[in-house]
Amino acid sequence: MLKQKKLRNEKKLFVAEGEKLVHEILLSNLEIKTIVAIKEWIITNEKLLKNKIEVLEATEEDLLRISSLKTPNKVIAVIEIPKIKFIAENLKNKLTLVLDDIQDPGNFGTIIRLADWFGIENIICSENTVEVYNPKTIQATMGAILRVNIFYLNLNEFFLENKENIQLPVFGAFLTGENLFKTELSPSGLIVMGNESKGISSKIASFINRRMTIPSFSQRIDKTESLNVSIATGIICSEFKRRAL
Amino acid sequence: MLKQKKLRNEKKLFVAEGEKLVHEILLSNLEIKTIVAIKEWIITNEKLLKNKIEVLEATEEDLLRISSLKTPNKVIAVIEIPKIKFIAENLKNKLTLVLDDIQDPGNFGTIIRLADWFGIENIICSENTVEVYNPKTIQATMGAILRVNIFYLNLNEFFLENKENIQLPVFGAFLTGENLFKTELSPSGLIVMGNESKGISSKIASFINRRMTIPSFSQRIDKTESLNVSIATGIICSEFKRRAL
Repeated sequence: MLKQKKLRNEKKLFVAEGEKLVHEILLSNLEIKTIVAIKEWIITNEKLLKNKIEVLEATEEDLLRISSLKTPNKVIAVIEIPKIKFIAENLKNKLTLVLDDIQDPGNFGTIIRLADWFGIENIICSENTVEVYNPKTIQATMGAILRVNIFYLNLNEFFLENKENIQLPVFGAFLTGENLFKTELSPSGLIVMGNESKGISSKIASFINRRMTIPSFSQRIDKTESLNVSIATGIICSEFKRRAL
Repeated sequence: MLKQKKLRNEKKLFVAEGEKLVHEILLSNLEIKTIVAIKEWIITNEKLLKNKIEVLEATEEDLLRISSLKTPNKVIAVIEIPKIKFIAENLKNKLTLVLDDIQDPGNFGTIIRLADWFGIENIICSENTVEVYNPKTIQATMGAILRVNIFYLNLNEFFLENKENIQLPVFGAFLTGENLFKTELSPSGLIVMGNESKGISSKIASFINRRMTIPSFSQRIDKTESLNVSIATGIICSEFKRRAL
């Protein structure tokens, strides 16, 4: 049932699967409502299961049937979507990723994992960015979802507010721009990454102070080709962080 | 039929799908045996279709049935697997990626695309690395497969040969090692990337001169977590290339 976005939003619940991820969630501040697991898992994790959690025993076949993944798991947890208030002031002196309509859950999950790796605490998403509680996104984050705050905002309004009040420099990844490795970067600011096929929308592009590009060393003729967005995000985040070392 | 690896190897043929990729292949040196396409595609591309190519008209429904992808395409091509001889001497003065048992076709395809972007001409794969002509790998390369040479070798023998004759420095990505951003790198050499869950095997690790690690800035406790291998490859390749700028 929670495989559908509408139901996830109405019920304010999402699903996480797999021993490693559920274990991390049990140790986190998130509120688990229900756990469906095989007997063996329940016995091993008995001490971690607080009284409030409803625990249902199931067979591996049952789990496979309700799973969103192809590989069977020993445990599936239903978790309350946490409510975090967005406070623009909190972005000051920090590096923040801004995603303009990322559509692929795998890319989004990988970007969240990257943000965690590079100590980026917040990701701001356009309203049309793929849902973070999509099971594929959750699995691709590998637990990083517990350490990175995700906010869905009207990007236009957000950038207007930034311009007036927060005044963080805005960097954007483009196919043509200044060489990432030679351009001036700052230890805090907003890094905008665009949609997989369309890139950064023109409306958002107007807010960008610095257009960066990852230089290519390829022999290919077609200059419209680009790196995968999660790869590009990895290279850009590492460049910002290595400068501050 | 060519969806199965065994058949691809016996027949020395592979399949590529989609207008962009097939167009690039038509302009390349690869030998296309058969094209299955909708009428509209055949008319538009008539001039590019040499006499030797067998062209079969099909409906979109036919294509969807024989496709390995979820999204329907206008054209599918059957291509001869090119024979390229491996000459170790050719790696001199170049940067080369060495993959130790990469298993995910999406990761492998992304790494090939990355190699193309960063002007890396050759990738050497362990014999257990996922097959390059797997349809998912081919699609993930986005045409980069036409510009990057892929060799499957016994890595142990290859590294012994390198040690004796070629003498390229061997770099490897590990969870613990020297900080990538501070360690000494060279414009030519071998960069070893390991399996998605196991990393670089101990046998191969013994050949590595320099163990590198991408430093993490995360607050997480679990230090066994790592970046996705294609993301790590992107960050490492960009670091090698930026130093040479």
